Amino acid sequence: MDLADRVLSGDLRALARAGTIVENRGRAAEPLMRELFPHTGRTQLIGITGAPGAGKSTLVDQFAHHLRRENKKVGIIAVDPTSPFSGGALLGDRIRMLRHYADPGVFIRSMATRGKLGGIAKATTEMALLMDAAGLDVILIETVGVGQDEVEIARLADVTIVVLAPGMGDDVQAIKAGIMEIADVFVINKSDQPGADRLERDIKAAESRVPVVRVVATDGAGIGEALAAIRERLHAAGKRERAIENWSLRLREMLRDRLLENYSNINFHEAAAKVASREVDPYTLLDQWTS
Amino acid sequence: MDLADRVLSGDLRALARAGTIVENRGRAAEPLMRELFPHTGRTQLIGITGAPGAGKSTLVDQFAHHLRRENKKVGIIAVDPTSPFSGGALLGDRIRMLRHYADPGVFIRSMATRGKLGGIAKATTEMALLMDAAGLDVILIETVGVGQDEVEIARLADVTIVVLAPGMGDDVQAIKAGIMEIADVFVINKSDQPGADRLERDIKAAESRVPVVRVVATDGAGIGEALAAIRERLHAAGKRERAIENWSLRLREMLRDRLLENYSNINFHEAAAKVASREVDPYTLLDQWTS
Repeated sequence: MDLADRVLSGDLRALARAGTIVENRGRAAEPLMRELFPHTGRTQLIGITGAPGAGKSTLVDQFAHHLRRENKKVGIIAVDPTSPFSGGALLGDRIRMLRHYADPGVFIRSMATRGKLGGIAKATTEMALLMDAAGLDVILIETVGVGQDEVEIARLADVTIVVLAPGMGDDVQAIKAGIMEIADVFVINKSDQPGADRLERDIKAAESRVPVVRVVATDGAGIGEALAAIRERLHAAGKRERAIENWSLRLREMLRDRLLENYSNINFHEAAAKVASREVDPYTLLDQWTS
Repeated sequence: MDLADRVLSGDLRALARAGTIVENRGRAAEPLMRELFPHTGRTQLIGITGAPGAGKSTLVDQFAHHLRRENKKVGIIAVDPTSPFSGGALLGDRIRMLRHYADPGVFIRSMATRGKLGGIAKATTEMALLMDAAGLDVILIETVGVGQDEVEIARLADVTIVVLAPGMGDDVQAIKAGIMEIADVFVINKSDQPGADRLERDIKAAESRVPVVRVVATDGAGIGEALAAIRERLHAAGKRERAIENWSLRLREMLRDRLLENYSNINFHEAAAKVASREVDPYTLLDQWTS
């Protein structure tokens, strides 16, 4: 049985191997992706983002726990901002502490960005497609951080959860503003702590049409309600429009990467040295390369 | 006098207009950039990044204040992660509260990402080049957030400052790990607060070769020392290698964007609808477009 068939049969080891191929071999992984693609589109993609300290990992762990009790197969993709420099060790370690690490019904993957500009959205998309092809029922994509990339990745999901927690300080509150607009569901974690009521009022004042669910991820309170709110959104109208919008973004990015492949003979370092010393301006170089 | 000449003469209104042209008109702004480029390369670019809540804006304000006392002309570029959704209003408001807003020796610009994948590094680069051409002596680039984009932008500077503060919690500590490696200078802000000593020890244990300066940005303590540490790094070896590395990244990105321009006739929305319904796979589409 070839690798694609093994992935389609739900073999998690084959899935892991396919993931490594897609991450490392770029274009050479295309035949595999092409073969698997028609078998995708059935899984539910849930993006989980929010400010640092809100307890996203604990929440993901609880979601996985509940979904396992319903006998769903669960994929977890942890997008790790530390990776370009530290090799993803930080989040990798955190992942290994999850109680589901040894559960064959849960497939966990930490995505390293490896310093590539713009590459993480593509890599995350392809990993999610592989998991989809392997028959995982729900994929939880956790992004750590509040930057543009994290926001884009969260948007790639069918439903995006923004996790907030009381008592994170004014500046963190301000940062949240950037991710408020992408929320399909707000989850207030640590909702037993002081400030949770005020936070809930503030959210409802800012985004009155988005459901707000209070949880205490550390003891599992409210997790069922949060999943119910997510499911309601999954079945709401607009899912197809969202998928089209997402694919439109991805196609543009994939085309850009593909086009650049034809220019692999350019010595960018040599060109950059000339630009740095102002021997030539970058626009003249672009004209030369593309004429 | 044409716009380029006015920018070169240090006319800040012309600089603002040039910035708007570069931000909004894309390729049509190239003749202007091409004319100004040979006159750039003299300014000092200082990137300031760090976890939310560390007090970066206050620090930038203090740096600007000190540099103005030395009669330096200062540019401030605030990269705003909230912009794709809220139009940059948040940071824009914060900027307007800075005491230098009315000082003609300080030029402040808030950069909106406008939801474009990968575009913010290019936009920031071009804005910095314009400020450089206008004769600003020092440019402070403040990035809010801890994502991949923010880290890339911080790296585009000649010197990168990572701002930390005590008492930000374990998760925030963890996030910091992702930006530790890009620091040329660490600044511990709020260094009069509990935990500052431990934070300093932790940083020194992790990155022993990077200078650590303690400041209290709200009252200006330590700002002179921080600027001295930054200047020492600016004059250290490796600056040219770094500029080449940065231009190498930027050239690759510029080429990618340029190549995509030839495909403006593609109806990505229509193509995305076919992919979303699995009528066609994205790889087949890419083959068709580029064959």
